[in-house]
Amino acid sequence: MSNLLRELSVDLGERSYPIFIGQGLLGNFDLSRFVAGSQVMIVTNETVAPLYLESAIACFPGKQVDTVLLPDGESFKDWQTLNRIFDGLLEHRHTRKTTLVALGGGVVGDMAGFAAACYQRGVPFIQIPTTLLSQVDSSVGGKTGINHPLGKNMIGAFHQPQAVLIDTRSLQTLPPREVSAGIAEVIKYGLIRDLDFLAWLEERVGDLVALKPDALAEAIYRSCVCKAEAVALDEREGGLRAILNLGHTFGHAIETFAGYGSWLHGEAVGTGMIMAAELSALEGMISQADCQRITRLILDAGLPGKPPTGMTADDFMNLMAVDKKNIDGQLRLVLLRALGDAVVTSEASPDNLALTLARFCGPQ
Amino acid sequence: MSNLLRELSVDLGERSYPIFIGQGLLGNFDLSRFVAGSQVMIVTNETVAPLYLESAIACFPGKQVDTVLLPDGESFKDWQTLNRIFDGLLEHRHTRKTTLVALGGGVVGDMAGFAAACYQRGVPFIQIPTTLLSQVDSSVGGKTGINHPLGKNMIGAFHQPQAVLIDTRSLQTLPPREVSAGIAEVIKYGLIRDLDFLAWLEERVGDLVALKPDALAEAIYRSCVCKAEAVALDEREGGLRAILNLGHTFGHAIETFAGYGSWLHGEAVGTGMIMAAELSALEGMISQADCQRITRLILDAGLPGKPPTGMTADDFMNLMAVDKKNIDGQLRLVLLRALGDAVVTSEASPDNLALTLARFCGPQ
Repeated sequence: MSNLLRELSVDLGERSYPIFIGQGLLGNFDLSRFVAGSQVMIVTNETVAPLYLESAIACFPGKQVDTVLLPDGESFKDWQTLNRIFDGLLEHRHTRKTTLVALGGGVVGDMAGFAAACYQRGVPFIQIPTTLLSQVDSSVGGKTGINHPLGKNMIGAFHQPQAVLIDTRSLQTLPPREVSAGIAEVIKYGLIRDLDFLAWLEERVGDLVALKPDALAEAIYRSCVCKAEAVALDEREGGLRAILNLGHTFGHAIETFAGYGSWLHGEAVGTGMIMAAELSALEGMISQADCQRITRLILDAGLPGKPPTGMTADDFMNLMAVDKKNIDGQLRLVLLRALGDAVVTSEASPDNLALTLARFCGPQ
Repeated sequence: MSNLLRELSVDLGERSYPIFIGQGLLGNFDLSRFVAGSQVMIVTNETVAPLYLESAIACFPGKQVDTVLLPDGESFKDWQTLNRIFDGLLEHRHTRKTTLVALGGGVVGDMAGFAAACYQRGVPFIQIPTTLLSQVDSSVGGKTGINHPLGKNMIGAFHQPQAVLIDTRSLQTLPPREVSAGIAEVIKYGLIRDLDFLAWLEERVGDLVALKPDALAEAIYRSCVCKAEAVALDEREGGLRAILNLGHTFGHAIETFAGYGSWLHGEAVGTGMIMAAELSALEGMISQADCQRITRLILDAGLPGKPPTGMTADDFMNLMAVDKKNIDGQLRLVLLRALGDAVVTSEASPDNLALTLARFCGPQ
């Protein structure tokens, strides 16, 4: 099982692309058939490069391969760092027939993808995600972008990759906090769409934390299938795709409050999902027992269960007001109608929202 | 005739949009039917705002209208200035349902359009071009972007507007140099596609320079029709659309050498077209008499006939090598097969290119 190459397709008409999942693909899988021209620019960071750059280059035999090294961390997901990619492309005279390759986690993927969307008004790119979070989330769906001091992911583009290569072996070098952060998004898929998968996760979450290869491969595959289905049905996030943001409105507020890079995205989403579950229970949509089941699973994944110390209900309200999921000023949230069934609503009671925030934030 | 409202459609399937041309439209034409939400952000500059901002706001009755003022000039077409648009949008809490409006010349249009392409991964926008160049060129076709220190328009997106409003009255306040720069692009349409229009221009170029309203309206309408046809046939610039770049490869090199903002884009394109004509003649594609006819028309429009003093053939070669119209390192140029018939080629003789540069640049 562990040497199996799994393949799935994200179905987006002429922008469809394949995802390959397997152990030991880096260095052995030829990606050059997804490169239209002769030039490849691999974008990676200082942490990932010593581990995987050499084997990533080996995936592009016969091509001119150049490299841009970025500093590591969400705090560098800004214009100044993005500009290093453009500098590298222009200094090496990459034309509009070049292909960018994102080798790293979600930050590298978002930035390399956005650079590809903008360089000479758009060039192709390939994703090689090396963290669990980016393998199950940001490498699928075409969202790219950078942060603005006033809000996360406020500047970006939808830009689909030519292909995604997921090597589960790259998770063996991942710090435990990042493994847990990735599991947060895996749990999300169970919560919003797939009760069977949720039950599977309650049994196997310990194996994921322990990096057992078969459990990882299964979780990544099922997560990618789930996200690929949601994205295929709703590429530009008009409706269904919005349920993928379960926990994200609370989570983005936490990340902004804490300062980018201090909480991992998945950690903030984990706490955000607990808060969304609490609000769903207060709204009478799920039971308190369901809510406790969700909380236990998220804690079992090694994730924090409450917002950062000192963050008040007012902080949440102010930071959620600029969140981009609001339409014409109304606060939209993803809540749970049942386990495995999420819904987007702008009709949560303000009192229940205030009560939820009070329970998690404590007194001012 | 001068009170006639002319309308044409740029045919791009579901991204089709109308262009309205007329005198005195600003302040009198209701654009709110092209605004899906309740928020409008007008992006303009310090020169245009005192003249036309108030009447532009009047085009959006019943909407929340905010404003971002940019400094004036191509030298500000950079990330720092672009970021002011994002600052304004986030400070005024514009959601992903906002509509951006570009009020000004090509720089404002490119930047507001690119901001619209990137803000929250894409929001709609409307063009109100106030210079002749932007009316006949940059408001049609969906090209948006900013400059990079190593190359012009290297960072951008294709993003089509919801509508374009052209008020010919706004040309009355345009400096003569900018009028001539706009006429350069008008001449280009005659040269690449429309021999009748070229003959019309040879008769009426004096009337354009003198800002005679009927001549302006006719020239803008015919230019927009020509560009709209080319864009509709080739939205992403795979082939036909590339002939719109006549004079631009030489022209971009001139702009980069002179420093952004020192030469106007249309001035550089004017000189670039004379150089392209010379090379076309050397290649035996047009006669020397045709070449002189082109040169005379461009000089009659009040445009410069040669590159900046001190610019050498080597400067051209180095700067043209990073131009984005090169594929895999080959220099592609737009040349004239005949008056009114342009062609994209990468097969111009290097000797003839060198001879052309030598004639225009003089000794090192």
